[in-house]
Amino acid sequence: MAVYTELADEELKAFVAQYDIGDVVSCKGIAEGVENSNYLLQTTRGNFILTLYERRVSAADLPFFLGLMDHLAAKGIACPTPIHGRDGAALRRAAGRPAAIISFLQGVWLRRPGPQHCARLGEALARLHLAGADFGIARPNDLSVAGWAKLFEACAGKADSIRPGLAVALERELDSLTAAWPEVLPSGVIHADLFPDNVFFLGERLSGLIDFYFACNDFFAYDLAICLNAWCFESDGAFNVTKARLMLQEYRKVRPISEAELYSLPLLARGAALRFLLTRLYDWLNQVPGAMVKPKDPLEYFHKLNFHRQVLGPGAYGLE
Amino acid sequence: MAVYTELADEELKAFVAQYDIGDVVSCKGIAEGVENSNYLLQTTRGNFILTLYERRVSAADLPFFLGLMDHLAAKGIACPTPIHGRDGAALRRAAGRPAAIISFLQGVWLRRPGPQHCARLGEALARLHLAGADFGIARPNDLSVAGWAKLFEACAGKADSIRPGLAVALERELDSLTAAWPEVLPSGVIHADLFPDNVFFLGERLSGLIDFYFACNDFFAYDLAICLNAWCFESDGAFNVTKARLMLQEYRKVRPISEAELYSLPLLARGAALRFLLTRLYDWLNQVPGAMVKPKDPLEYFHKLNFHRQVLGPGAYGLE
Repeated sequence: MAVYTELADEELKAFVAQYDIGDVVSCKGIAEGVENSNYLLQTTRGNFILTLYERRVSAADLPFFLGLMDHLAAKGIACPTPIHGRDGAALRRAAGRPAAIISFLQGVWLRRPGPQHCARLGEALARLHLAGADFGIARPNDLSVAGWAKLFEACAGKADSIRPGLAVALERELDSLTAAWPEVLPSGVIHADLFPDNVFFLGERLSGLIDFYFACNDFFAYDLAICLNAWCFESDGAFNVTKARLMLQEYRKVRPISEAELYSLPLLARGAALRFLLTRLYDWLNQVPGAMVKPKDPLEYFHKLNFHRQVLGPGAYGLE
Repeated sequence: MAVYTELADEELKAFVAQYDIGDVVSCKGIAEGVENSNYLLQTTRGNFILTLYERRVSAADLPFFLGLMDHLAAKGIACPTPIHGRDGAALRRAAGRPAAIISFLQGVWLRRPGPQHCARLGEALARLHLAGADFGIARPNDLSVAGWAKLFEACAGKADSIRPGLAVALERELDSLTAAWPEVLPSGVIHADLFPDNVFFLGERLSGLIDFYFACNDFFAYDLAICLNAWCFESDGAFNVTKARLMLQEYRKVRPISEAELYSLPLLARGAALRFLLTRLYDWLNQVPGAMVKPKDPLEYFHKLNFHRQVLGPGAYGLE
C-alpha cells in the first residue's frame, strides 16, 4: 500500500495540462505497489496511472524503465506505456519527485492463481523475453550475487532474531551460490519481479504485465526461477508441480529452454529465493515507523530456498 | 490509507454477478479513508466503489447510512448512492464483512481549499441539512458529549505523555461543555465528518459529498462547527476569518441560521474540536502495529479548541 507523496491541487492540474489527455475528473491514491506513489487518474479522455517515483527507484534508471515499456508495447506486449507530453517528454517532475503518466491496463491480479494462469504466465514471460531482445539500453541486475552479499552483510548481525541459525545458513548458501552461479546462460531483458500482483487477467485471459521497475539484464532462466517461486508454491508451503510444469511447458513453446538453462534451474531457483529472502529480511529489520507498508515474511522464502536445495534436478519442476 | 480486507478472485466475480453492472474489468484498493476497505471497481459498464465495512462501522447502522445516501440522492444532493442488486438488496456480505457497491462520484478533494471552496461547502452543507429533514430513520450521535466522556476516560491516564497537563485541561473542558451544552437547537441529519477529503470539486464546482459513515441526528449548527474547524484553519494554525465568513454566509442563504444557533457557535466549535481531539488522542495512544494508517496529530485540535475558548462571540467567525 503506498501513497508517500501528496500532490497539491494546483500542481496536479498544472502537471496534467502538460499532456494532451483532457482534464482531471478524479485522482485517487492506489493502495498497491510498495516502491512508488501511484494514483489512478481519471480525465475527460480516460483512465491513467500517475506515478511519483520514490526512494528505491534511482532516477538514473527511469529512462531504461520508461523506454523499455515503450519498446515492449511497440512489440505487441500488453504492458503500460508512458504517455508523452506535448513537449515529447514522458518523464518530468512533480512534488519534487520524478513523475510520469502511464497508460491504464485493464484486468485484475489474481489472489489465487490456478494452473491455467501459470500456463498463461509462462507464455507471456517467453514473449516478453523475445520482445526485449533488441532493446537498446542495458541495466545490470544490482540484485544478483554481488547485491545479495551486500544485503547479507547489512542483515547478518540481526538475522538470528528472526530465526536462530538463520545468519549461518544464509552465509553458507551465499557462499555456495557465489561459487556455483553460472557465468553464461542465454540472457536479455528480464522482468525480475513478476509476482501475481504484477500480472493482470480478464477472466482466463492474461491482459497484461505491469511494474517494470526491477527490470534488468540477466539470465532468462533466472526470470523463470523467480516465477517458479512466486507462482508455484501453495499458501501451505507445498510446491505445486502441475503449475510449474504448465508454466515451463508453455514458456518453451514460445522460447525453447536450452539444456544448460534446464539443469541450472534448481540453482537459479535457490538464488531467486535467496534474493527475495534477503530483501524481505532487510525490510523486516529496517521497518520505518508510519511507512504504511506491511513487511512481508522473509521466512516464506527460507522455506522455498530449502525446497530447492533438496531438489535432485529439473524433473522436480515437472519437466522430463 | 486503507485496504484491510482482500477479496479473492472468485469471490469478487461472484459478488459483482449479483448486480446488473456488467463484468469486472479492474479492481484496485484505494489508499483513502481509514475506516473501511475501499476498492475502485471498474466494470464493462462504468466505475463504482466497492466498500467492505470494517471494525468501527456497526453493521446495525448500515441501513441508516445506505438509506440516507439513497434518500439524499433522490433529493438532488450529489452524493454516492448504493447500487441495488438483482434481488433489490444494497447491503450484502463479502469476505466475511458487510459489503456494498456504491456509485462513483467524479471530482478530486482539495489539499488546499480556498475561500471560494469554503463558500461552496457552506451552500452544500445547508442543502444537505434541508434534504435530510424527512429521512425516516434516526441515529443518535454516539460521538457527542456522553461519547466524549467515555473516550476521555479511556485516554486520561496516558494523555500527559502527549503533552504535560493535557489530561487536566481536557477534564475541565469536558466538564464545562457538559454543563453548558445546548438542550435544544434546530436538529436533523448531519454529516458529522465533512473534512476536505470528503468533499469533491471539479474545477471550482463542488461535485459531491462522500463518506456518510458518521452521519447522525444532531444540531445542524454542530455540523457547521465541525466544518469551521476542518476548513478554516490554515496549516500554520491561523484562523482564516474570510473562509469562515464565506462558509456561513452561503450556508444561511440556503438555510437561515437562528440567533440561538449563532450564539451557540463558539461553544459548539469547542465541542467539535474536543470530539476530534479525543478520537485522535485515542487512536494515537492505541496504535495497532501494521495497521497502515498514519495517526493524525491530536494536538492540532487542542490548538483549535483553545482558539474557540478565547472567542468572544460569533463575530469571531466573520458574522455580524
